[in-house]
Amino acid sequence: MAGMTAADIEAFLARQFPGAKTPKVRHADGRRAELLLEYHPKQLRPGGTLSGPTMMTLADTAMYALVLSAIGEVPLAVTTNLSINFLRRPQPEDLVAEASMLKLGRSLAVGEVSLRSASSEEPCAHAVVTYSLPPR
Amino acid sequence: MAGMTAADIEAFLARQFPGAKTPKVRHADGRRAELLLEYHPKQLRPGGTLSGPTMMTLADTAMYALVLSAIGEVPLAVTTNLSINFLRRPQPEDLVAEASMLKLGRSLAVGEVSLRSASSEEPCAHAVVTYSLPPR
Amino acid sequence: MAGMTAADIEAFLARQFPGAKTPKVRHADGRRAELLLEYHPKQLRPGGTLSGPTMMTLADTAMYALVLSAIGEVPLAVTTNLSINFLRRPQPEDLVAEASMLKLGRSLAVGEVSLRSASSEEPCAHAVVTYSLPPR
Amino acid sequence: MAGMTAADIEAFLARQFPGAKTPKVRHADGRRAELLLEYHPKQLRPGGTLSGPTMMTLADTAMYALVLSAIGEVPLAVTTNLSINFLRRPQPEDLVAEASMLKLGRSLAVGEVSLRSASSEEPCAHAVVTYSLPPR
Repeated sequence: MAGMTAADIEAFLARQFPGAKTPKVRHADGRRAELLLEYHPKQLRPGGTLSGPTMMTLADTAMYALVLSAIGEVPLAVTTNLSINFLRRPQPEDLVAEASMLKLGRSLAVGEVSLRSASSEEPCAHAVVTYSLPPR
Repeated sequence: MAGMTAADIEAFLARQFPGAKTPKVRHADGRRAELLLEYHPKQLRPGGTLSGPTMMTLADTAMYALVLSAIGEVPLAVTTNLSINFLRRPQPEDLVAEASMLKLGRSLAVGEVSLRSASSEEPCAHAVVTYSLPPR
Repeated sequence: MAGMTAADIEAFLARQFPGAKTPKVRHADGRRAELLLEYHPKQLRPGGTLSGPTMMTLADTAMYALVLSAIGEVPLAVTTNLSINFLRRPQPEDLVAEASMLKLGRSLAVGEVSLRSASSEEPCAHAVVTYSLPPR
Repeated sequence: MAGMTAADIEAFLARQFPGAKTPKVRHADGRRAELLLEYHPKQLRPGGTLSGPTMMTLADTAMYALVLSAIGEVPLAVTTNLSINFLRRPQPEDLVAEASMLKLGRSLAVGEVSLRSASSEEPCAHAVVTYSLPPR
């Protein structure tokens, strides 16, 4: 099955999560994906920093986008493991996620995701995410 | 510093995250905490199951509640690592989190969190969460 | 396929890793397994504490023993993920591992493993381990 | 405190673990480190592949080398968390580890480590490792 394009993935995410603010998919080619989540004050937690759940959700979505770009529209792919390290306080601004595939296997896909504030070079969080893939 | 009571923690979470639906804190004694997140259709993801972010957020909050019950009101405690395994599809119903402390150190607290649907005995997810603690 | 007994698992581990000091399997019933690794000065690292690799290896072996007790002799089961938190310095003495199954699925088994020094009640390390299972 | 050089780290590891086969440190500059573990048949597990513990130990040592290159000789730095994904069967040959620093904080250092067989470009394992640093 052919992978989805970045534009198709962005529209697919918006359809799958109606009402939620889904990220822009700036790039996705089966090996690497880059997403951008626009800043919204609702993502803040006390102290003026983006919340951990906002970052975890974006990391998970970035890996999902990468999987979709690798193997096509698979609504049944599910996360089996997500491990995230929070490294620095993100700024109250857009959040960028860069996902890269570590292994695309028959039944599992493993990728790493680096998150950073749009104005920063250093990561605010780093995640490793495993998806279980449906038979195909 | 004395730990917070379950009732105080529940009110504290509601104040810290205004507008969000924060969980009930059914028990918290510094060694163990039990939280309940009431079901709301907005938590659903395609396929009629609770979303991963809903579960990750509850796991993180359960560990935060456990930390607050152990060392008192510390708004500056932050998650440094969260590792979660998704085990079974949760039901579209209330979600229960049971957190227990593995180590309460000087600068780090490590706990494990088991999540299950309210009507089920088997966990739908299991997380290990590390918080960095402020000097105290 | 029937699960292996504790005695069979202990002999199987010794055969699979000739020359290595393999742990005793004190209990294994498909849901829970308990192993004991006898102390040997070679396991020490500077400072007189048991080395991290000794603990990681025992955690992995304990989950392997649990899998064997659940589904029988499967030499092709392989670890896909191991996440371990080191909590306290272990004593220079026997090390006990208690593994319990979180999920035994068709293609993945997930378990948690608590490690403690034989004379202690508190864990020195805690791991979550995922094995990939061969078709059966 | 100045960081250690690659040559000093290699000698330091050999002194700290007498009797063990410690890896060569090919590069270490505080931001990145590259180690090579020479192949030895004792590292094999059934099936002719390098054992998981061999890979976990090398990942941990690579992060330790990176920490030493960043902050100098700190025998009291200890691993607090290691999370490893096993991606592909390594070949029975030399194993290369590339560690890079994600965050060097006051009390914690977080790095990622990619492991590959010497003749391969693709990783056989990927780890994220956290060290607790002594006051300095």
